[in-house]
Amino acid sequence: VILAVCLNAAVDVTYHVSDRVTAGGSYRVQSVRHRAGGKAVNVARVLGQLGEPGRLLAFAGGTNGEQFGADLQSAGLQHVLVAVAGDTRRTVTVVDTVEATTFNEPGPRVSEAEWAELLEVYVSLLPEAELVVLSGSLPPGVPVDAYRQLIALATPNDVRCVLDTDGAALSAALPARPWVVKPNHHELSELVGAPLPDVAALHSAARDLAGRGPVTVVVSRAADGVIAVGPDGSWQAQPPEQQAGNPTGAGDSLVAALAAGLVRGREWTEILADAVAVSAAAVPVAVAGEIHPPTMRRLRPAVVVRSLAHLSRES
Amino acid sequence: VILAVCLNAAVDVTYHVSDRVTAGGSYRVQSVRHRAGGKAVNVARVLGQLGEPGRLLAFAGGTNGEQFGADLQSAGLQHVLVAVAGDTRRTVTVVDTVEATTFNEPGPRVSEAEWAELLEVYVSLLPEAELVVLSGSLPPGVPVDAYRQLIALATPNDVRCVLDTDGAALSAALPARPWVVKPNHHELSELVGAPLPDVAALHSAARDLAGRGPVTVVVSRAADGVIAVGPDGSWQAQPPEQQAGNPTGAGDSLVAALAAGLVRGREWTEILADAVAVSAAAVPVAVAGEIHPPTMRRLRPAVVVRSLAHLSRES
Repeated sequence: VILAVCLNAAVDVTYHVSDRVTAGGSYRVQSVRHRAGGKAVNVARVLGQLGEPGRLLAFAGGTNGEQFGADLQSAGLQHVLVAVAGDTRRTVTVVDTVEATTFNEPGPRVSEAEWAELLEVYVSLLPEAELVVLSGSLPPGVPVDAYRQLIALATPNDVRCVLDTDGAALSAALPARPWVVKPNHHELSELVGAPLPDVAALHSAARDLAGRGPVTVVVSRAADGVIAVGPDGSWQAQPPEQQAGNPTGAGDSLVAALAAGLVRGREWTEILADAVAVSAAAVPVAVAGEIHPPTMRRLRPAVVVRSLAHLSRES
Repeated sequence: VILAVCLNAAVDVTYHVSDRVTAGGSYRVQSVRHRAGGKAVNVARVLGQLGEPGRLLAFAGGTNGEQFGADLQSAGLQHVLVAVAGDTRRTVTVVDTVEATTFNEPGPRVSEAEWAELLEVYVSLLPEAELVVLSGSLPPGVPVDAYRQLIALATPNDVRCVLDTDGAALSAALPARPWVVKPNHHELSELVGAPLPDVAALHSAARDLAGRGPVTVVVSRAADGVIAVGPDGSWQAQPPEQQAGNPTGAGDSLVAALAAGLVRGREWTEILADAVAVSAAAVPVAVAGEIHPPTMRRLRPAVVVRSLAHLSRES
């Protein structure tokens, strides 16, 4: 089973309103939807669609935490929840006639004891884990090197980790040598402090990042696919066409596909081609954490994977 | 005890964000506050501040219903909750650097059995009730004449009702002869289908409304105070000055003051003067359901109450 760790769980709420939203207005919400959210939850959902069993480990607290757990239950997602005293955060997305506006609650502060409890439960789940996925931002209260600690605990168990986070949480985790890190273009650019305007610049930045610890760096580039740099080679994988829709959650679908490919022991060129097709297949779906399988099957044979070995030799 | 009936309970959520809100944006919420809401809840809170014990009867369901009950508990508000299968609605108010934007969830549909259960509990509470306050809109599922039914059940128990609602819920309730109805200027204008530009027009419309059932009609006019028309006379009561702040909940504070004055058996001129001062004292307070007592005490002696008997004779 793939263990997906969700430190910053959320109840994602979607409001539909039939007017344009402007500040100062008062709106009658036409429909309300609730869904367990957080990047690792999206990963676990897509793993299920890919036929790869996932198990979620998350903090949950208060009435929102109950709602979070109830939704995982009804979605049939295996999960283990560590109780926190605070109330699990909500995100509220207001979809009006034209676009969506999102309000993200900060989430509860995790105490030292709650963090220690999560580590203990995590260690108890490692023996059954084929791979660990660490996705999302850190909640207030957990140490900035939380992901480093989680990776360091997995290593002696021979469990590899895929890490998808950014900023300080990512930097602090690198020395623990995650198997894969997946920054997006913007996150990598922020990390290296440079704009990375082309494939060569991205490749070079990914290689520098790999030099700081991670075994393989996969950079997601939205509609442009991915660039990957690792010990077995470096590649660019591109989808044949751009999808219209909602790109939220496409990165999480990509991570799910990487995780599924890794536990299946596939070649990197195949993993990357799968991942690009899966990620693109998330865009036509309105909600995050779901893909459209026919789109994935249609795009998959047309994904182009090219070696970037010449860039490695050049520099 | 004054029994306040809340058919459309809510959890009022306030988000503070440090930017201006525009559609399409994504905002990090700086602070989140939750509070049991709904107009009757505001009335019950202000009754407490006026030293008059209130008891709340409300529908509550789901995790939001739990949160609603927990907040009433921590606020020390006596309450009896009737369980509904649906989840109690939320209102989300986003306060940005300039103004507030509000999103109102529709609330759960109340089943026939749930409505029958509320009526049964209500009847059991009537013997202890000195007065009933019926405030707010009707949730989906309850009959449009819900307030008429509640008033009709109170009458044989010699319990009088103060009604604060609008539109069809108000129209349908009038034949049951509530003791007091409190439309605001806008609601009365909608009900009679005319703009009501001056005191004479308001007085005339209030008298017409009284002809349709209610004993006394009190029209709230925001910063202009109130106009009242009833069997003992008709009056205009005006505050000495306009308050700066948040007028949300000022009408509920007015209703609380009317209810407190009625159970204390005060004269209408005193009730109206109190009510105008209490209503104005709600404006300086940021949240609904709370007044600023020093403002009330300062304004009270300066409220001017004038008889409108000349308008009754003229027409």
